[in-house]
Amino acid sequence: MSDVPSRTELSVLGEFGLIDRLAARVELTQKSTIKGIGDDAAVIDPEGLHQVVTSDMLVEGVHFDLSYMPLKHLGYKAIVVNLSDVYAMNATPRQVLVSMALSNRFSVEAVEELYEGMLLACRNYGVDLVGGDTCSSASGSILSVTAIGSAPKEQLVFRDGGQEHDLLVVTGDLGGAYMGLQVLEREKAVFQETGAQPDLAGHDYILERQLKPECRKDIPELLRKLDVRPTSMIDISDGLASEVIHLCKQSGTGALIYDDKLPIDPATYQCARDFDLDPTTVALSGGEDYELLFTVRLEDHDKIKGNPSLSVIGHLTDAREGMHLVDKQGGLHPLTAQGWDAFLKRGADGPGSLSTA
Amino acid sequence: MSDVPSRTELSVLGEFGLIDRLAARVELTQKSTIKGIGDDAAVIDPEGLHQVVTSDMLVEGVHFDLSYMPLKHLGYKAIVVNLSDVYAMNATPRQVLVSMALSNRFSVEAVEELYEGMLLACRNYGVDLVGGDTCSSASGSILSVTAIGSAPKEQLVFRDGGQEHDLLVVTGDLGGAYMGLQVLEREKAVFQETGAQPDLAGHDYILERQLKPECRKDIPELLRKLDVRPTSMIDISDGLASEVIHLCKQSGTGALIYDDKLPIDPATYQCARDFDLDPTTVALSGGEDYELLFTVRLEDHDKIKGNPSLSVIGHLTDAREGMHLVDKQGGLHPLTAQGWDAFLKRGADGPGSLSTA
Repeated sequence: MSDVPSRTELSVLGEFGLIDRLAARVELTQKSTIKGIGDDAAVIDPEGLHQVVTSDMLVEGVHFDLSYMPLKHLGYKAIVVNLSDVYAMNATPRQVLVSMALSNRFSVEAVEELYEGMLLACRNYGVDLVGGDTCSSASGSILSVTAIGSAPKEQLVFRDGGQEHDLLVVTGDLGGAYMGLQVLEREKAVFQETGAQPDLAGHDYILERQLKPECRKDIPELLRKLDVRPTSMIDISDGLASEVIHLCKQSGTGALIYDDKLPIDPATYQCARDFDLDPTTVALSGGEDYELLFTVRLEDHDKIKGNPSLSVIGHLTDAREGMHLVDKQGGLHPLTAQGWDAFLKRGADGPGSLSTA
Repeated sequence: MSDVPSRTELSVLGEFGLIDRLAARVELTQKSTIKGIGDDAAVIDPEGLHQVVTSDMLVEGVHFDLSYMPLKHLGYKAIVVNLSDVYAMNATPRQVLVSMALSNRFSVEAVEELYEGMLLACRNYGVDLVGGDTCSSASGSILSVTAIGSAPKEQLVFRDGGQEHDLLVVTGDLGGAYMGLQVLEREKAVFQETGAQPDLAGHDYILERQLKPECRKDIPELLRKLDVRPTSMIDISDGLASEVIHLCKQSGTGALIYDDKLPIDPATYQCARDFDLDPTTVALSGGEDYELLFTVRLEDHDKIKGNPSLSVIGHLTDAREGMHLVDKQGGLHPLTAQGWDAFLKRGADGPGSLSTA
């Protein structure tokens, strides 16, 4: 009997009871947080800094699948996804608000596990959970997170500051989260058909990219240390190609990016090959890599080259030259926004393919 | 053919297309909004003021029923519900972020109608829509709104500042939204059983309280004009009784409120009687009245008495005396948090009943 995990129905606690129980686990650590959970609104002292604010939703059946996503990881990811957007402004996240519409299938213990993952992310990134909302959902669950960050006005970096000749730089490596998802989807399908236990051996890296992504807290700090001020910056969670297009459109430029410069981890590369997918396409359009894309002036090249966290993948051009990928033979392929689209069920299609110019 | 409204599927536009289309309708009017939709995050200049921030979710089938809630009204209400929490801090709302998980049943035109309602509320209350997220939902729709407001630090009013002998004051009147819901639910049931057209005649006031609520933008201003600084304040959307309890718990006091002082509109009173409901219970526990409850020092009584927007309904007591309703015969009834609970389907039960002390 002792092995049966306890299960408390949400209706036993009710909304206020659940909020009290969750709120009791929250610790406030930020000096700028004047009031957290417990009043009509949280209160923030901006301390003379500009505030940045961003919201993202994760929807069951669209952004996550509870059959392979542990709840604690889901909570962690819901926070990280939002903080990534704050770092992409070259700002420091300080507070989050978390709203949850929870399926009745959830027990109190399940919600607590989800919350534990959120609080772990808050601790790791030094942000306070200061509010939100909790309610039931007739069907699937939805997590909606708002993140608030701050920075001196002059430190903020937008999408529209890129200029011709600026270098395009991407952090980390690409396509891993997408290939992790492919492995999980394949093993789920095998399990559903045959009942065979999932075979995830050897896929640690790409599974972690999908299930427990981190965002680039280190990058704004690294850039300050290198004395490099990006001219523009964007989070590439929707896929590199799509985000290069966003950045160019807002900056009024074109871009060339080079196939042989795209940072792809060997595990991602091999897995793409095993799935008969083109690694370049996966890197361009896979999405969910919580990495940053930014531009720097050409004269800053020496400051960043050789840094293991940064890859120069191309440069901005005159807008009339368009946006292209240069393949290993020097051929040009127009970039297309095959980015993961929230209105298409994730994983239902491949990541799209390159059209040839 | 010309009468057939056009219907564009969401999948035709895709996420980015829809966001572009909606964003084109947004106008920014607040000086504090430095950047709205279109970057990784919105940017706010706090202008030396403290910021307050609050999130609320509206879930289809729990908080709204599209069979009688017009989309434009739903959008309007989703904003108002959040702004009410900002006013309850004695702050001025400035920005909102709107995240929508939309059922595939929605057409682009339907989303635009929903958005139109949100933008109308933004215009009426002088706030900027600066960001959010839009994605599909496998089943019902969910709206998640975050509102941001600002105020000088010393102007903010919390829930915990009430003291013994302070007067309890409520704005507007109570129970209307709940009775509006009862009429709508009754007519929906009749329609489902018999196909009879809804008979909503004579219920204009309570239907508007339910379908197109406004929040009390005027109250912080009025209080400043009357030179009254509330000692504590709370939004009473979860029902008066439940919010009196919240306020007392946080202030460390008890409370007495008087049945014959509760402001109930004649239309609400009559409708409750027609439904065989106790008007007092409806006023105490109905919920969704976006009114404010606040406390003022006894010596401020002269400044507020007779004001048509304000009703003194009781006072705070020593915590040991508990929280009670005094009935017309002088009998004491403990207040219970029968507030509308997000984990019980709305309207499934009556508003609960008073237990006798």
